[in-house]
Amino acid sequence: MPQTEPRKSTPVSQVRYELLTLGDELLLGLTANSHLSFIGSELGRRGAMLRRNVTVTDEADAIARQVRESLEAADVIIMTGGLGPTCDDRTREAVAEVLGLKLVFDPGIEKAIAQRFELFGRKMTPNNLKQAYRFDHGEVMPNANGTAPGLWVHKDSKAVCMLPGPPNEMQPMFVDQVVPRLAALGLLLEKESYVQIRTAGVGESMLETKLQPILDPHGDALSIAFCAHAGHVDCRLSSPSGRIPFARIEQIASECVKLLKEDFVCYGHDTLGKVCADLLRAQEKTVAVAETATGGLLAQAFTDVCGAAKFFAGGCVCCTNDAKMQFLDIPECLLLQHGSVSAEGAVAMATGAAEKLGADYAVAITGFAGPCGGANENPVGTIYVALHAPHGVWSRKLSYPGPRRTIRQRAINAALDWLRRELVRAAHGADAPARSSILQ
Amino acid sequence: MPQTEPRKSTPVSQVRYELLTLGDELLLGLTANSHLSFIGSELGRRGAMLRRNVTVTDEADAIARQVRESLEAADVIIMTGGLGPTCDDRTREAVAEVLGLKLVFDPGIEKAIAQRFELFGRKMTPNNLKQAYRFDHGEVMPNANGTAPGLWVHKDSKAVCMLPGPPNEMQPMFVDQVVPRLAALGLLLEKESYVQIRTAGVGESMLETKLQPILDPHGDALSIAFCAHAGHVDCRLSSPSGRIPFARIEQIASECVKLLKEDFVCYGHDTLGKVCADLLRAQEKTVAVAETATGGLLAQAFTDVCGAAKFFAGGCVCCTNDAKMQFLDIPECLLLQHGSVSAEGAVAMATGAAEKLGADYAVAITGFAGPCGGANENPVGTIYVALHAPHGVWSRKLSYPGPRRTIRQRAINAALDWLRRELVRAAHGADAPARSSILQ
Repeated sequence: MPQTEPRKSTPVSQVRYELLTLGDELLLGLTANSHLSFIGSELGRRGAMLRRNVTVTDEADAIARQVRESLEAADVIIMTGGLGPTCDDRTREAVAEVLGLKLVFDPGIEKAIAQRFELFGRKMTPNNLKQAYRFDHGEVMPNANGTAPGLWVHKDSKAVCMLPGPPNEMQPMFVDQVVPRLAALGLLLEKESYVQIRTAGVGESMLETKLQPILDPHGDALSIAFCAHAGHVDCRLSSPSGRIPFARIEQIASECVKLLKEDFVCYGHDTLGKVCADLLRAQEKTVAVAETATGGLLAQAFTDVCGAAKFFAGGCVCCTNDAKMQFLDIPECLLLQHGSVSAEGAVAMATGAAEKLGADYAVAITGFAGPCGGANENPVGTIYVALHAPHGVWSRKLSYPGPRRTIRQRAINAALDWLRRELVRAAHGADAPARSSILQ
Repeated sequence: MPQTEPRKSTPVSQVRYELLTLGDELLLGLTANSHLSFIGSELGRRGAMLRRNVTVTDEADAIARQVRESLEAADVIIMTGGLGPTCDDRTREAVAEVLGLKLVFDPGIEKAIAQRFELFGRKMTPNNLKQAYRFDHGEVMPNANGTAPGLWVHKDSKAVCMLPGPPNEMQPMFVDQVVPRLAALGLLLEKESYVQIRTAGVGESMLETKLQPILDPHGDALSIAFCAHAGHVDCRLSSPSGRIPFARIEQIASECVKLLKEDFVCYGHDTLGKVCADLLRAQEKTVAVAETATGGLLAQAFTDVCGAAKFFAGGCVCCTNDAKMQFLDIPECLLLQHGSVSAEGAVAMATGAAEKLGADYAVAITGFAGPCGGANENPVGTIYVALHAPHGVWSRKLSYPGPRRTIRQRAINAALDWLRRELVRAAHGADAPARSSILQ
């Protein structure tokens, strides 16, 4: 556990955090820098903001130079990568040099590494022993998902925290071992610092206007941040100055939720797919999907939820008329007369999927996500969504600008949000469809 | 076009490039930093390596401080974000201050912005005029996909290039306008600097050993880089010193390809899905898919290719026995006897998909991708892949460690690689399956 006393002097929001992500593979564009999103968002939850993220090469000089520079500016430096067994892993050496620390061999780490190799029936090569060195000061953070342990040093009121590069090793180590250490030192809040309200069907500026009567009276004691995604908008409430207690922020948020009615999706970060899954499970209902333009991504929104077989009856990707006829028993004449990108086509797909799989609900998406495809009356960006519910089936024509990926994501979120609204209404005993909801 | 004469003194590989990505949304983890991967990889293709990527907040001070610091270290600074119409867009002002430039209003830019609003039938708000300011020195890079133009300044032998934040605006501007400017200044190579061989079915160290007899004789004049992904390994050949001409590197690569036989996937960066798609189109064949554990991602590997309806007959996601029976006509007794996660189950899925959709080939994946699910003889990580081809149908049992995402990606790549090998053999007139291929 932490070496120094908690220091309560600096408010968490003013602690300067820097993230150093190491690795040529990041700078060469071979691997996406997922560490920035993950650590930035985890720190944000506990009231701290990452001030800077620097990615440098694997060269020992470049690492040492950057650590030196960051030590000038930051209170806490989080480093990822460069702890592995190969010759281009140089984090330990560079940090030891800059901080004037010695590296010592730790038989405990050696044992843990050897055990991991044994567990997977692999032979340990000698270069793995490099990972058994730790600083003469500081702490070792065990790695349950890999060989390289994390390292933690606290010196001259600066904390330096070194984490392994693979996300499946880094992420649990950060959450389970780094966050509690930082919180104990007063460098992060003990619990989440904000309440996030996730909404759908209402644009960012409209949401702001709607919530003004509730939020404005709190003046600048309440910090309000909106963030628009493809198909949903988040609103975060916090009080960085601490002038509004957290329980009161939760109360304000619940007033917003009451006002938003069905436009409220959830508190926190759940995806629309997860929210639909929870509603389906609670009502013991199932959903099926049929899709063309989204090519498997709609099914994925549900199958990403673990244990999906409980509520997800199945899905099909049917880009050709033949696939629609074979999988969903849609009559060819319907497709020939109306075209497969049509309201009739979408309704037939949703009905077909629901009936074929005996599902309570079904969602269908057909259209042109571009860049190729599209026709005069249905240019690229035209999407038909259909929803089959126990009391009927409806379709909607949508039109989105933007690149393929955006069109697909917005189509999926529009479809999921429609299903979500129906499930919310069903939970409340309503049986008429929510026709007035806005699909954006 | 560029303001200064090309300078040929510094080799491209030694030009110091830095990327500054601006935006609180990156540091808060709300948006992934896709600019780093894109620009890093584009520079790499033309012989340059990004030395550093720094992400800073939207604060004017932080931007100015970083630009000042980066100007010390770098020859070329590429900046993304902060060019938009709102008050947190401060790139222009910060750069003007640091470089001692003036901002001037440009009626030409104003006209372009107004035309864009007209095109989409939207009303232009006054804050958009902020985007019509450019430096008194330097150039303006028109933006065909958004309102904020890019800016380019070349001063004191340093190039500073400012690009809009949205990837669909930044990426074409970088490729069409920035790369040619840099190449004309001798800061990037005129064409690709390396040959990349993409392989599958052979591990990184095995690949290195296999290629040694061809590559070793060239000594350190030839630079060789291996990069392993989930299911394929890339090998890049280049000669940063210029001692081996590019035509000779291409020749060496083709010797490697000849040696690798079916383990060679393609030159360059195409996905396995794209390579399969090209082979299917060339042979006028179609493929169908059926999947459980991969939940729509296998279909997506094909539907990500534009115009997929030409070769992709369709796919289904059938996590329940009922869906397998309904979509694929698999007899219930088969599923009850063998279990749905079994060789027999996978073979029935592939055959069902091919027959149902009249496809020439079909690929099926079933298994447990975790974290929940799994049984004694089939723990999490167990995947059955089946391939249906015109001359028969086969299955394979695979086992992968790692988190859900990795297991899914490796399963898909193993399935796609198997299909690819069959298609390559079919193109060569072979009709026996490639039983000996390694699925990793």
